[in-house]
Amino acid sequence: MKKTIAVLPGDGIGPEVTDAAVKVLQSIAMRYGHTFHLKHAAIGGAAIDQFDNPLPQETIETCEASDAILLGAVGGSKWESQPSHMRPEKGLLNIRKHFDLFANIRPVKAVPSLLSSSPLKEEVAKDVDMVIVRELTSGLYFGEPKRRSEKSAVDTLVYTRSEIERIVNQAFELARTRKGKVTSVDKANVLETSKLWREVVEERKKAYPDIEVEHMLVDSAAMKLITDPRSFDVVVTENMFGDILSDEASVITGSLGMLPSASVRSDGFGLYEPVHGSAPDISGQNKANPSAAILSAAMMLKHSFGLHTEAAAIEEAVMSVLEDGYCTGDLSGVGKRVVSTETFVTKVIEELERE
Amino acid sequence: MKKTIAVLPGDGIGPEVTDAAVKVLQSIAMRYGHTFHLKHAAIGGAAIDQFDNPLPQETIETCEASDAILLGAVGGSKWESQPSHMRPEKGLLNIRKHFDLFANIRPVKAVPSLLSSSPLKEEVAKDVDMVIVRELTSGLYFGEPKRRSEKSAVDTLVYTRSEIERIVNQAFELARTRKGKVTSVDKANVLETSKLWREVVEERKKAYPDIEVEHMLVDSAAMKLITDPRSFDVVVTENMFGDILSDEASVITGSLGMLPSASVRSDGFGLYEPVHGSAPDISGQNKANPSAAILSAAMMLKHSFGLHTEAAAIEEAVMSVLEDGYCTGDLSGVGKRVVSTETFVTKVIEELERE
Ligand SMILES: CC(C)[C@H](C(=O)O)[C@@H](O)C(=O)O
Ligand SMILES: CC(C)[C@H](C(=O)O)[C@@H](O)C(=O)O
Repeated sequence: MKKTIAVLPGDGIGPEVTDAAVKVLQSIAMRYGHTFHLKHAAIGGAAIDQFDNPLPQETIETCEASDAILLGAVGGSKWESQPSHMRPEKGLLNIRKHFDLFANIRPVKAVPSLLSSSPLKEEVAKDVDMVIVRELTSGLYFGEPKRRSEKSAVDTLVYTRSEIERIVNQAFELARTRKGKVTSVDKANVLETSKLWREVVEERKKAYPDIEVEHMLVDSAAMKLITDPRSFDVVVTENMFGDILSDEASVITGSLGMLPSASVRSDGFGLYEPVHGSAPDISGQNKANPSAAILSAAMMLKHSFGLHTEAAAIEEAVMSVLEDGYCTGDLSGVGKRVVSTETFVTKVIEELERE
Repeated sequence: MKKTIAVLPGDGIGPEVTDAAVKVLQSIAMRYGHTFHLKHAAIGGAAIDQFDNPLPQETIETCEASDAILLGAVGGSKWESQPSHMRPEKGLLNIRKHFDLFANIRPVKAVPSLLSSSPLKEEVAKDVDMVIVRELTSGLYFGEPKRRSEKSAVDTLVYTRSEIERIVNQAFELARTRKGKVTSVDKANVLETSKLWREVVEERKKAYPDIEVEHMLVDSAAMKLITDPRSFDVVVTENMFGDILSDEASVITGSLGMLPSASVRSDGFGLYEPVHGSAPDISGQNKANPSAAILSAAMMLKHSFGLHTEAAAIEEAVMSVLEDGYCTGDLSGVGKRVVSTETFVTKVIEELERE
């Protein structure tokens, strides 16, 4: 298979972790006889510094000429006081919208050997295995009017039926490949958009009689994610709720540095990035955990290229390096051997070559 | 002191827990020489059944003729398929708006003897002591336009400068009586309303040079509430974020059944209610934990009537009954003696009479 991948390292630890993921992709290409053309381009703060634009036209063109996008992380205090169109995260918002990447998919799966890092009791966090499906290109993030005056400000939460349908379908399809349960999260006792959301879920579920569907209010979901995280399989929700709940969910298993994400559209094209941020405090120190970026690359192989065997090989390699007791500083603990980013990647590649 | 209190029992366990709180108020009145006139009125599902209206005019008049409101809980599956103007929670939304109760105040404090019920590791949840201050009468809940068509739906997130100022002031004042730190939560990297919110906090903080102020994005706050809940003192945020974060915070210490809340305006008038819901599954069984309602009554004495000694006496009485090992079923555990709602209240009153 021949594929072109746009690599957008971004800021902070972004370049280190995307480098790591690229090495793993190259090892996979070699071993399984694929050709991955890797084309680097700028985004976020790095792009602001170089091109005065968090998402330069060159980057858009590179991505348009690619089959998928691998992204590191964007942001840092350096750009924090800039006006919004010159802030790193604007690059992220723009690329999502430009490529219509409406489905953000975030798996959260407990890793047994890492449960000691969880803020939750091990008996609560163990065996957690859920995916949050967040609508990513509509809602409060993009709704108009969105404006400021001296005395007030307005944002608009708007959803169309078809925007809801496509993300809900995505969740149902995903549930079919998993435990067969969808939890749709809304605030239907207060919001008109949530009432429409709930109606669409009720309609769409007729096409998926094999899937168990539950509706949950966002405040209840925020509680249940902590008190009973194992009860979730696929969670589907709108953009703003998804932002909050997926970050909340990302810390319950104690392995934030391990979590990948995909932002995809219906034709398989997608952007893959770690859930963690740019962590400027440890950037450039060869300390960052590359697992989330590596596992994001694995999600790319699976979702965008259909390379299931290769994706599984990467996941197994990362897990077995962890089981051998190796980890980066974020996961240090009793019985663990803390290694550098580079050493961790080398171990993952050795494992891949052994398999 | 002579005060009139409107008692709105509501649905499910609401009547049982408000009865308990009323008994405690009567004991306080007797012991400290106050007169509390208690006037019962209907709200929520109970009001729908009786008056076809979740907040009948009679109830509004009773509350207008009172110095404070004590509420039980509203809601239940019985009314769930009703149109929104005939749903129990509409009573709650309407009473907040009618009386301009713009500040929802929710203390979350770890009770050492209850930490074993927390989903969090005891070392994470112990010593948590924060208050969430949520704006309650604006934002997405009430903003116009708010409408539905066949193909789309809209809600509006709108804030005026003065709406933000008054809630932010409330938070600063509260921080002065506590650890002196305010965490303002917004989504200023995406929302115009959040940018205005952040500006107002920056302006108002000049009047409070003794208070430490931090800004936090709502997604980060959702994480940090779990990974490091002790780092918060006073958290202030807008209505929808506050709904989600205050419910998230309510489960971290394992004592949801203990948590009171106040919804107040600037002149001291307020509505006091447990954080927990109407729990229809255990209603009428003399099993509900009355602590949250009793502690809500204590908040009323303090905030609305300035009766600090009496409020402290109630809080101490509840804690000492718990320390003696008595609790209701929701908090059962090793070394605990599970008692009925009525027995628990009797113990609290015995304790009050002993003090
Ligand atoms: C950086 C920010 C705009 C972004 C979002 O809110 O979507 C981030 O929090 C995320 O979840 O990817
Ligand atoms: C019942 C509902 C409308 C209400 C809200 O969202 O404000 C409740 O969740 C609360 O927090 O008091």
